[in-house]
Amino acid sequence: MTNKKLKIGLIGFGVVGEGIYQVLKNTPSLDAEIVKIGIKNSSKERNAPSELFTNDVQSIINNPNINVIVELIDDDIAAYQIVKQSLLNKKAVVSANKKMIAAHQKELIELQKENNVPLLYEAAVGGSLPIIRNLEEYYDNDLLQSFEGIINGSTNYILGKLQENNLSFSEALSLAQKLGFAESNPHIDVSGEDAVNKLGIILNHAFGIVIDTQQIVRHGITNIKKEDIAFAKEKNYKIKLIANAKIDENQRITASVLPTFIQSNEIFFNIDQENNGIALGSSFSDKQFFSGKGAGRYPTASAVLSDISALRYDYKYEYRKYNAKLENKLVNDCDVKVYVNFNNWQTIDKNCFTTIEETFESKTNKYLIGWLPSESINKESWIQDTSVSLIHFQNN
Amino acid sequence: MTNKKLKIGLIGFGVVGEGIYQVLKNTPSLDAEIVKIGIKNSSKERNAPSELFTNDVQSIINNPNINVIVELIDDDIAAYQIVKQSLLNKKAVVSANKKMIAAHQKELIELQKENNVPLLYEAAVGGSLPIIRNLEEYYDNDLLQSFEGIINGSTNYILGKLQENNLSFSEALSLAQKLGFAESNPHIDVSGEDAVNKLGIILNHAFGIVIDTQQIVRHGITNIKKEDIAFAKEKNYKIKLIANAKIDENQRITASVLPTFIQSNEIFFNIDQENNGIALGSSFSDKQFFSGKGAGRYPTASAVLSDISALRYDYKYEYRKYNAKLENKLVNDCDVKVYVNFNNWQTIDKNCFTTIEETFESKTNKYLIGWLPSESINKESWIQDTSVSLIHFQNN
Repeated sequence: MTNKKLKIGLIGFGVVGEGIYQVLKNTPSLDAEIVKIGIKNSSKERNAPSELFTNDVQSIINNPNINVIVELIDDDIAAYQIVKQSLLNKKAVVSANKKMIAAHQKELIELQKENNVPLLYEAAVGGSLPIIRNLEEYYDNDLLQSFEGIINGSTNYILGKLQENNLSFSEALSLAQKLGFAESNPHIDVSGEDAVNKLGIILNHAFGIVIDTQQIVRHGITNIKKEDIAFAKEKNYKIKLIANAKIDENQRITASVLPTFIQSNEIFFNIDQENNGIALGSSFSDKQFFSGKGAGRYPTASAVLSDISALRYDYKYEYRKYNAKLENKLVNDCDVKVYVNFNNWQTIDKNCFTTIEETFESKTNKYLIGWLPSESINKESWIQDTSVSLIHFQNN
Repeated sequence: MTNKKLKIGLIGFGVVGEGIYQVLKNTPSLDAEIVKIGIKNSSKERNAPSELFTNDVQSIINNPNINVIVELIDDDIAAYQIVKQSLLNKKAVVSANKKMIAAHQKELIELQKENNVPLLYEAAVGGSLPIIRNLEEYYDNDLLQSFEGIINGSTNYILGKLQENNLSFSEALSLAQKLGFAESNPHIDVSGEDAVNKLGIILNHAFGIVIDTQQIVRHGITNIKKEDIAFAKEKNYKIKLIANAKIDENQRITASVLPTFIQSNEIFFNIDQENNGIALGSSFSDKQFFSGKGAGRYPTASAVLSDISALRYDYKYEYRKYNAKLENKLVNDCDVKVYVNFNNWQTIDKNCFTTIEETFESKTNKYLIGWLPSESINKESWIQDTSVSLIHFQNN
């Protein structure tokens, strides 16, 4: 059992960064010292000794007295440069930047291998839930069959407010921003992109594939209307943004992020507020379920802290499934049952649907329920109207 | 990344043992071979080639061609001898025997250290849930504050049948046995002893203390009467057997296994059937919740398989909190609010209660609700009557 002294360069001092600073200061048993803190705006007042701060990030990455870089900035392009150069400088790295990680997985795996230093990013997926660690360590044999989850706390919070408090979309969104659940650019949350990035990382640790996240079938929650909420209520459904990936016996994977109707007896029905919930299906142990806080300062700080703590023992991801070069491949060639709400029949190409089960029309409301080839959802050839709302029926 | 060829000596060929055999045969990627299978009764017909079987367990433990012992027998005394000698012979060991592990933790930790071989036992606690792995790997920093769980699938199943199907205790028990959820000696489940053993193991991985499990406050479900079920229904509670451990800021720990009233808005309310559910409280990430199948063939086999799989990479428990020799200590000096149902006022020593809040008496039913020093529950000085039922009020 090694117990390495960690000398940390912290880059970013937002809510999470400051939380980490406070905890490390108050937890001497972790034996981790923050040597320097990199910030963009050095004129702001900070709750830490001023000599710790610098806006010269390079001086941190190149500091021979620092062996760990904790990167907690928002800008994914700058984050990529920082992480890459830190790994090249043989420093261990902790990051929470899902967009950056999802976009550069192959290179980041190579950089870790070549420089023999770890990059940990538990905080990037599932808030405080130890999902990557569990996929790496516990589900490392090939029995995992499915991943299903609410993995964006911000949209879950917003959908809850739409459904329970009858708020409008913009009211709900501004409340989520006020509480610190939403990304600084909320479009990333509500378009489903944040969940797509996380699912891209999950696909690697769960099934060993690294894909262009553009291939993940997705539809956001931006267009969800009060008519959709009323439809769901009438059937006793809740609408949740669900990330889903499953593999069949022929190693064919489907992966999507879609607003989904959840029935009241489903496990996700009661995952409310900004909580995340993840169900893993395996051939042996049936469904396993994890839930916990998915967004906000402390859940993220908690995951970052666990990564820092693991570095004391030289923990690293093994990427076993990825390294095993399995024949698993993303295909997305199944049909999915969806509800689609729109303003005008002319904007919908009915020929894109394999089957249409129901159509409804009143003066103020038009929808259809039918089966759509999942890959066509991203192509958007079936709609001319970008204000269409689409909701998936779970397990169909 | 090492990828060790595992040559397994499997001891025990009950439902779990046979499941493991089948899976390893059908999963060549695990690169694990079962070299020999030790059994007690060699006259029984088995679903595996007869040349694999032997009733000479010593020949397996001493076989130089075997590097892993998977021990899946029921008898905790024989299991202890097998595990101890296997570790002394420098073989890695996987076991699911919670009673044996709880009773010999200190020695087993020493044996692992001295012989530099791992002993893994994820299947001993929480069925298919990766709870030990998570406590070891993810909650290894000192932020964990509480553990609360339904960790005995058999009693959870029985309590469900009492409450939802109005079965008698003995009907529910025999159903649990028929479905393979109960221990071969069901007293171990219904007395709470099985959960106590598991909590003894949890206390080590969660808080770094190894205690005599006799110190854990406990009361079983054997005496739960139809009047108790009626009382719970009236208040919209469910009764669940809850294992609980928490630590305060002075490193004082309380630990109990008690039948507990669960309110309908509590997370454990919907953990039914043979499922297990575990909630971890930490200062940072609030409550995290895990649930999944807790008893039966496949959940146990799933956990055993994950341990076998981890041995390929020389995974071992680090016992970080235990090795850190923290000042944490079990005290159990708090008062707990309980409901007690009994036949005769004379059998209850009211002086043992700190406060009595309610007493009830009808021709057929007598109970009181009051506060009892938790340590007195084990002493049973407060009752002369062993048929008393006791149910804890959660969070009180």
